[in-house]
Amino acid sequence: MDIGTMARALRAGDRRALARAITLIESARSDHRDQAVELLSLLREDGREALRLGLSGTPGVGKSTFIESFGMMLAEEGKRIAVLAVDPSSARSGGSILGDKTRMEQLSRHPNAFIRPSPSRAHMGGIARRTREAVALCEAAGFDLVLIETVGVGQSETMVAEICDIFLLLMAPAGGDELQGVKRGIMEMADMILVNKADGDLLATATRTVADYAGALRLLRRRPQDPQDFPKAMPVSAVSKAGLEKAWEELSTLAAWRQAGGHWARRRSDQAAHWFGEEVRHGLLSVLEREPARGIMARLGAEVAAGDRTPEAAAAEMLRALGRA
Amino acid sequence: MDIGTMARALRAGDRRALARAITLIESARSDHRDQAVELLSLLREDGREALRLGLSGTPGVGKSTFIESFGMMLAEEGKRIAVLAVDPSSARSGGSILGDKTRMEQLSRHPNAFIRPSPSRAHMGGIARRTREAVALCEAAGFDLVLIETVGVGQSETMVAEICDIFLLLMAPAGGDELQGVKRGIMEMADMILVNKADGDLLATATRTVADYAGALRLLRRRPQDPQDFPKAMPVSAVSKAGLEKAWEELSTLAAWRQAGGHWARRRSDQAAHWFGEEVRHGLLSVLEREPARGIMARLGAEVAAGDRTPEAAAAEMLRALGRA
Repeated sequence: MDIGTMARALRAGDRRALARAITLIESARSDHRDQAVELLSLLREDGREALRLGLSGTPGVGKSTFIESFGMMLAEEGKRIAVLAVDPSSARSGGSILGDKTRMEQLSRHPNAFIRPSPSRAHMGGIARRTREAVALCEAAGFDLVLIETVGVGQSETMVAEICDIFLLLMAPAGGDELQGVKRGIMEMADMILVNKADGDLLATATRTVADYAGALRLLRRRPQDPQDFPKAMPVSAVSKAGLEKAWEELSTLAAWRQAGGHWARRRSDQAAHWFGEEVRHGLLSVLEREPARGIMARLGAEVAAGDRTPEAAAAEMLRALGRA
Repeated sequence: MDIGTMARALRAGDRRALARAITLIESARSDHRDQAVELLSLLREDGREALRLGLSGTPGVGKSTFIESFGMMLAEEGKRIAVLAVDPSSARSGGSILGDKTRMEQLSRHPNAFIRPSPSRAHMGGIARRTREAVALCEAAGFDLVLIETVGVGQSETMVAEICDIFLLLMAPAGGDELQGVKRGIMEMADMILVNKADGDLLATATRTVADYAGALRLLRRRPQDPQDFPKAMPVSAVSKAGLEKAWEELSTLAAWRQAGGHWARRRSDQAAHWFGEEVRHGLLSVLEREPARGIMARLGAEVAAGDRTPEAAAAEMLRALGRA
């Protein structure tokens, strides 16, 4: 399929074309990359935008069940929802064994939904760069909401925050002690904290946890992109569906406020500039991943480790070998 | 002064030559850089090694007083000690107003001591790279101990840990709640935690804090580079000098154990390989800091932020402009 045809099919909402386009942007082949760049430029002209929603939470917090329930609610209301996963662990394991579609059985079969598992790539930077491009493809395909899911470990959250418009943190009901374990940096990224499992025996604990997080959020510095009362904490139950409608209302209020105040556009513009820099830096460094540079680098590195050369002298030789001294 | 003369003076322990050599490695001029690389290669051949001691602690914990007391104790015993500072904030302020020598008045005038403030450079990576080279110069100048001091914020600690043989964390006496605020990552880097101000009214609190940290350290995974009972927590008082001799004994025991088991050499070899990679990556990216690349990057970045181009298309053009597509 040529790029023009792919762009047309994708704009018409053809999900097979979307899946093929995502495969294209995930390809490491340089001719594929050129085509991917061309496709993204073509689609940008449409100017279609979706709400880009980041969602993080540690394993066991009920992320898949939440996405299934939350996504089904919106899909049934006629909204088109795409779910993309950023899972740094799949880079090692080559993808989760069960797969994302099995985790969200109903949603994956809904005509208004599209689910794509995490690309399995060598490093986090690569996953994030390609996920951002997949978001752009989903927008061009006319989705109303693109949900970018990640696990609550390390730098994947920072990268998802650089992709999304609104960042949600899904938490489990917990005692006050465990609350302290949440990294301040993650709290500062959150626009809303949803405490899941607010049902049955855990309802009281969940309510208390919401109050604890609300208190913690009030201690953070006020950000210009937040209306009164944001960031906020709320209880939800992915199982009983309690709080899901309310969470969507709050999200929509926040989104509308940010759009009206120009924060939305400014954040997207900052994010685009950020990823431009990342792409350039990655491009400059990618020479080191190819032969002959890779081999020279390994040889010089071994000499440095053996103490036969200083790091500086070896680096100078490496840069000379690359013609960049 | 030519490089050969500088190397000879430095080897003879001439501190003016050492100070000039550090100024040379801190210079951004490319001819200076070539000379610095040559000097470091020349000096490496001597094979002189000092104990490289990293020291971190938040402002107010008494770091300067500790270095003054600890350094004076060792200097009086005839040991030659160099103190280098890695202060990311000085990159912004252009150096601290009082300066490091004023902070350590006695030590700075001692014939066995050498104190050098943090280089004021644009970014953390630059500070760390040049500090590592300054350590090598101090070793060549015959110092027994090089103490690399940093403030307990962000990535500066990770970088100091990549330079030193042993990493010390200096802490204040604190309640159990505050203890939780210490980032796990920092705890995992520490070889010893010294709780300062273990004197007067704070003695009891300090003793309790030591027990708290000792408990927290026992929860961490055992590392192969640690003998039994390490990492450990100890009380010290920079003011009353209590515990300083004991801390030095423990440090020396740890250093001897690591040397005997090969951990010392392995860590240095890993560190050298790490910094070789950092130097190469920095060298490749440094083209972006110079004209005309800088100007093109700014123009394309503005176009991306304005939404006139996709980040990918702009990055591809940037790499073509650099002849690296």
